[in-house]
Amino acid sequence: MAQSIRLAVIPGDFIGPEVTAEALKVLEAVAPAHDVKIEPNSYDLGAERYLATGEVLPDSVLAELRDHDVILLGAVGGRPGDPNLPSGILERGLLLRLRFEFDHYVNLRPSRSFPGVPTPLASDAPIDFVVVREGTEGLYVGNGGTVRKGTPHELATEVSINTAFGVERVVRDAFARARARRGKLTLVHKTNVLVHAGGVWARVVAEVAPEFPEVEVDYLHVDAATIFLVTEPERFDVIVTDNLFGDILTDLAAAVTGGIGLAASGNVNPDRTAPSMFEPVHGSAPGIAGQGKADPTAAILSAALLLEHLGEPAAARRIEEAATADIAARAGAPARTTTEIGDAIAARVTA
Amino acid sequence: MAQSIRLAVIPGDFIGPEVTAEALKVLEAVAPAHDVKIEPNSYDLGAERYLATGEVLPDSVLAELRDHDVILLGAVGGRPGDPNLPSGILERGLLLRLRFEFDHYVNLRPSRSFPGVPTPLASDAPIDFVVVREGTEGLYVGNGGTVRKGTPHELATEVSINTAFGVERVVRDAFARARARRGKLTLVHKTNVLVHAGGVWARVVAEVAPEFPEVEVDYLHVDAATIFLVTEPERFDVIVTDNLFGDILTDLAAAVTGGIGLAASGNVNPDRTAPSMFEPVHGSAPGIAGQGKADPTAAILSAALLLEHLGEPAAARRIEEAATADIAARAGAPARTTTEIGDAIAARVTA
Ligand SMILES: CC(C)[C@H](C(=O)O)[C@@H](O)C(=O)O
Ligand SMILES: CC(C)[C@H](C(=O)O)[C@@H](O)C(=O)O
Repeated sequence: MAQSIRLAVIPGDFIGPEVTAEALKVLEAVAPAHDVKIEPNSYDLGAERYLATGEVLPDSVLAELRDHDVILLGAVGGRPGDPNLPSGILERGLLLRLRFEFDHYVNLRPSRSFPGVPTPLASDAPIDFVVVREGTEGLYVGNGGTVRKGTPHELATEVSINTAFGVERVVRDAFARARARRGKLTLVHKTNVLVHAGGVWARVVAEVAPEFPEVEVDYLHVDAATIFLVTEPERFDVIVTDNLFGDILTDLAAAVTGGIGLAASGNVNPDRTAPSMFEPVHGSAPGIAGQGKADPTAAILSAALLLEHLGEPAAARRIEEAATADIAARAGAPARTTTEIGDAIAARVTA
Repeated sequence: MAQSIRLAVIPGDFIGPEVTAEALKVLEAVAPAHDVKIEPNSYDLGAERYLATGEVLPDSVLAELRDHDVILLGAVGGRPGDPNLPSGILERGLLLRLRFEFDHYVNLRPSRSFPGVPTPLASDAPIDFVVVREGTEGLYVGNGGTVRKGTPHELATEVSINTAFGVERVVRDAFARARARRGKLTLVHKTNVLVHAGGVWARVVAEVAPEFPEVEVDYLHVDAATIFLVTEPERFDVIVTDNLFGDILTDLAAAVTGGIGLAASGNVNPDRTAPSMFEPVHGSAPGIAGQGKADPTAAILSAALLLEHLGEPAAARRIEEAATADIAARAGAPARTTTEIGDAIAARVTA
């Protein structure tokens, strides 16, 4: 069952291309033994292109991207506070546009601790959970506006959109993942304040639950969830939550498990009606670009999620094991460059 | 300058009355030396009253509460999952109603670490910051709705309302607090996604900043802020943020500084057009009620915020010092009951 993967690569800005190169290296290294062929096409998108040309995501590029099996993204983003780069332009115009155009309704963010990686927590209980964040609704739909802008009477709104259709499909996905893991699903919301949105989330979870009798369900308000993520993160297995809460919880999760340099993510269209996109959770980190200091592990683990999504679990596992072994080897060893880490993990997947 | 304080007390449910009794004890103890007289009236509100009578906050009670200088609240809330207590009924009908009716636009939540109190973090760098959370706008306004409820075509919305008026007054308050502290203000929002709401917040902060030249301003996205709260909480001095982000960040802040048993808060109307309300951040904790296990320290520290608000900083400082000394004395000592802790702090303020 040889598989050719038409892979669109969006390296992006600053450390984006640096970490993407290593992820690609590892993908190419693992591929032959699993009878997989990687056919990459690179797309130049991000802050640099926008600053040079004013283009964020031309329709023609969007059409080309659609014609791939999957997308690997490094990181996009300019220098903080760059006056030529209005806040939100790349986020809304590129990252979120891809999530919406390609219906990435499952925003998948695994969090686990790695032996040997220091965390900010005093406890070293092993952490291993997945956040299934809804990716196409909520406050991210861009449904808001401003009147009397710039005056003392300015009024700005943001509308959170939540549909039973949108909630149910991501909730089902989360239940299925919980069943395949430790059988525990936690809904996180703020049902006591956001009674309308919270109502549909709570109802859908309650309605789907009987179809997954082996999954134990509980509920936490988002504020309480942040407490447990710090005091008892080992209690979580699968968390399902809305777009904004998921954004917040996953950065927090990355922090408690030892840092954003290891956090991978997938913007997944489980129905495969359009390419899914995999990317490290970290940003383009202008401050460390060009120095070989970026940790490519999150990008490499994102490539593992990519293979898993395309039905290559053995190849995915191989990358995960290699990355885990490499991470374990870091404790006490001298720091290595981005390329050295990529080379080492690539060597491990073929060893 | 003798001051009589007409104090409305809402003990609430479960551990609410237990901790409120201790806070009141400490208030009464500190009062004479500062020429303050406490005139408390107790109001029976909360889950118990609702379950017994169907009443949440009768208009007549609201009118009586308004006729006080200040309110001290313990905690309200029933048993988790009680089918007779619909989610949101006490929150929207009582807690949030008071915030809106009495225009509590500054939701004040100091966070500090106490020597000797274990925290979930590995680092023991001292933490001392204040979150100034907007209390009357954002997603908390209750502006949302549901169509086709309970059907596969359900659509639920929540609207976040942000006005220049509402943002400016809380931002000014936060700047003033930052000037009186270490001169650092961090705006937390999600301007790259919530471009409308984020726009008014960012603009107002930029416009007010020149009036406070001694305050250094920075900005963090809410997701990044959660990372720093865990990895580097000592960097913060004053955080100003919207209602929902503030809700999330302050629970997280309470967790990283050693727990919700110590976290105090004020729902403040700085213009004094209606009574402000002070309450511990924790809930009614049905699981430990009636056993003398509740820590009254958060309620007692809330009473200190109350005195500060009423222009009694010396009395407030006295309570804070007594509570801090008591907390320090806990390390390694046998656990004490709620009353024992209250007695000890009351003894310290008069010593
Ligand atoms: C960059 C931004 C639009 C994005 C988000 O908010 O989803 C990022 O924070 C993430 O979590 O992928
Ligand atoms: C109980 C709830 C309405 C409230 C809030 O969300 O503001 C609480 O979490 C708080 O932080 O005071």
